[in-house]
Order: sequence, then structure tokens, then C-alpha cells
Amino acid sequence: MTEAAASETIVTACLLIIGNEILSGRTQDANLAYLAKGLNAVGVRLREVRVIPDAAETIVSTVNEVRAKFDYVFTTGGIGPTHDDITAECIARAFGVPLVLDPEARRRIAANYANPADLNEARLRMAHIPEGASLIDNPVSRAPGFQIGNVFVMAGVPRIMQAMFDGLKHRLRGGAPVLSRSVSCSLPEGVLAKGLGELQQRYADLDIGSYPSYRQGKIGVALVLRGTEAPRLAAAAAELAAMIRRLGGDPVEEEAG
Amino acid sequence: MTEAAASETIVTACLLIIGNEILSGRTQDANLAYLAKGLNAVGVRLREVRVIPDAAETIVSTVNEVRAKFDYVFTTGGIGPTHDDITAECIARAFGVPLVLDPEARRRIAANYANPADLNEARLRMAHIPEGASLIDNPVSRAPGFQIGNVFVMAGVPRIMQAMFDGLKHRLRGGAPVLSRSVSCSLPEGVLAKGLGELQQRYADLDIGSYPSYRQGKIGVALVLRGTEAPRLAAAAAELAAMIRRLGGDPVEEEAG
Repeated sequence: MTEAAASETIVTACLLIIGNEILSGRTQDANLAYLAKGLNAVGVRLREVRVIPDAAETIVSTVNEVRAKFDYVFTTGGIGPTHDDITAECIARAFGVPLVLDPEARRRIAANYANPADLNEARLRMAHIPEGASLIDNPVSRAPGFQIGNVFVMAGVPRIMQAMFDGLKHRLRGGAPVLSRSVSCSLPEGVLAKGLGELQQRYADLDIGSYPSYRQGKIGVALVLRGTEAPRLAAAAAELAAMIRRLGGDPVEEEAG
Repeated sequence: MTEAAASETIVTACLLIIGNEILSGRTQDANLAYLAKGLNAVGVRLREVRVIPDAAETIVSTVNEVRAKFDYVFTTGGIGPTHDDITAECIARAFGVPLVLDPEARRRIAANYANPADLNEARLRMAHIPEGASLIDNPVSRAPGFQIGNVFVMAGVPRIMQAMFDGLKHRLRGGAPVLSRSVSCSLPEGVLAKGLGELQQRYADLDIGSYPSYRQGKIGVALVLRGTEAPRLAAAAAELAAMIRRLGGDPVEEEAG
């Protein structure tokens, strides 16, 4: 997105991925792309992602920084029953409110256990949310996430995170969804660069990205056009395809969403 | 890592992933985990990752924020020949130096082309680095990355990024490498949580993480212990295995590195 194109109403979001296991390389994040596409479909643009450790001061200060800067903040990770699950208490601290036992959250979690003794102290921690927060449903394993202000707190396990996001996205108020088209060819980027830069200047309302790939020793490039107006995208994609043909390439067009 | 354990000499790093294609969900990042593990092996701890768009102001201000905050900063993405490749000029702006043509970078890039006319203006952009920077070798496609101060600028294409990192890591001065052990079992986290929290308190010099998984309908949990002293890790892992057995589980231990 060029800065010039940012004048229309744009609704922005930031994702905080909370967890040492991502920063150590042990676990590959699988939530970013799901959230990015889901937000895009409701007209919200993911503008920044931060991966931060399970360290209270870092979580509190980061949440306070990004909730002031973006329209929506989503967090993943750190809402389980173990000692390293500190997201809920950190969000409460960030908002300056106490962490309180939520009766409905307690009821949902209790329903997992036939024997009431199994609802131990650790599991009851998951029924505590910041005062004033509302629950986010967890159809997979019941222990809910929560929303407070513009911050949505979700689980880190992808299957649960995805179910939580699908259940909360009706709460979001987005702008115009971003549409995209993709034109691929096997010309090198260095041959396309000049014309591509000129095209970007003529279509300053679009965001044109060039993504090279090397597969089985073959150079390829995907040129992705993004914007909110389908006719503008179609016109730019047609110009781009014509340019590729002029340069001796074979454009392959896809409507990407 | 508990804050109490941070008293020894710890060398920290931040990764900036620069690119709209990651934020749109089009491309799945594959560099974070590689960098995390590679840094860990040389005693540098990846403490934060940010994914930011191809937007000049954001890149400049983020680079300046994180290079003051962490010992090392690594960037991936945005150093190709097209209009959306703005990382080098943004790093130059962040350091307050001009972008200059580097003769050695030019020579390496020129070697890709039998016909000198193919070394066009777009490709020559890749031979420009901030004044005072040193080159990072690119054994895959030649166009180099660069280092300036504590900031290492690498390509986004994973095969190139990995080769660049492997070639530069001898420049890094790390602390003690972080060792880890993993103990897995099929008990639920809620059963383990109390004992695990007590173990973390007794081993405040270690970082103990609990990572649940749901595979083929089966609950599992990996308990990962991290620290710099192998005997402490071994002692904690043995206590953890004994605890799991007491709770009726079957611990599976792995030395994780």
C-alpha cells in the first residue's frame, strides 16, 4: 500500500503472537496467514505482527502500545492452565482492571469434567478474565477467549484459534475489502522492474508487489495487484499482461479474491 | 525465560520481516524458525519478531527503535530490483547515511550477465548499500545483503536468506548457547499445571514451557525445559519425569539440543 493510497477509510489490525515456542523456532506459527485472510475478507487490514515472549512486562507494554496505534489487536497464545500462561493477567494489567472469575466461563469449563474435583485451581485460572471483558466462544475445548476494548484474546493452538476467530469476526467493522489479482510469468524481475515501477506510479491507488520464486531451478515471478476497486485492478492487470507479452513473456492471470 | 534468570550475560536479537506478502497471508514466512535455531546455536536469543509492510516510514522508525533495544537486528525481504524493494534505502535513512554504489556488489551482480546491457538500472539498484555497510555474501543468486552497525539485511527468499545467514553467523558474538530438553506425555495440562508451576519456581534459572497438542483426537503435551547448564536441565527433566509417573502418565524424554 503506497502512503498516497491511504486516504480512504482504512481499518487496521495488529496481531501479537505470544509465546517462547515461536521465538525458539520449536513451533511454526500457523495463525498469521489464517487471520490475515479472514480479516481481509471483512475489510480489516493486518498492518503489523509481533512475536513476543511469555514475559509480563513485554506483553503489558506491547499491548498498550499497539492498542493505541491500530483499530483492532488480536493476540494468540498463553491462555491455558499452566504457569507460563500469563496473557489474561497481562491484558488486565494493561487495561488497569482486576482479573475476575467469570461465572459463564466457569460453567463452560466445568462442563468438561464429570467429576467436580477435576475442576482444579489450574483449570479455574482459565475462567478468569479482565473485568469488563466479554467472552469469545471456544467450540473446540470450551475454555473461552475474551474481548476487552479493541483487543481480542485467543488461544494459540491453531484449530482453536481459527474457531474463535470465525465466531468473533461478526463483531468487527471493516472498510472496503481488499481485492487482489495475480499475474505470473517466468521473466526475471530485473527485466520487469522498470515497467512495473511505471505501472505502480500510474496506479497509485493500487499496491503492486513482485514476488520472485525459484522452483526446480526455474525462475518465476508473481505480480500481485491489490486494491478496493475491481475495475481498476482489471485495467492494471490487463496493462501488466500486455507489458509481459511485449517483453517476450507469457502472462498467466489469476483472480485472487 | 523468567525475568529473574536474565542476570547472566544474554545476547539478544530481533527479526524484522519486511513484506506486504506476509501480512496479506499470501506467503507463509519460512525464515523465523531457521534464524531462531541458527541464533540459538551461537548463543544469541531471538527476543522479538515484527512483520511490517513495505512502507518507508514504518521501516525507518521500526529499525531505529529495535536497533537501540536489541544487540542484533536481522531483516528479511525487500532487497530485490523492483519498486517495492525499499529496504536498503530505508536502512540508509535510519542510519542517516547516503545509499552508495558499492563496486564489489556491482562486480558480483554484473557477473550474472554475459551481455553488459542486461545490467540495467533496476539491477544496479541492488548494488547500492548504505555508506559504511559491509557486504553479506549471496552464494545463490549473487546480489549481496549487507551489514551496517548491528543490523544485518538479508533477502526474503528462504534459500537465499539461509545461505546469507550461514555465511554471516561467524560475525556474531553470542553468550552461552541455550540448551533444551523435552519431556512429552499424554496427561492433560490441567493435571500437570500445579506440579509444573512448583518445578518452575524451584528451577528459576530455567524456562519451562508447556505446549499442548491435539493430534488425531488425542491430547498430548510437550514440556520443554531451556537453560544454559546441562546438569540443571537433566535434574529438572528427571524430576519432571518422576512427577508425570506419579500422576499416572508415561513420560517420553528427548534431548532437544
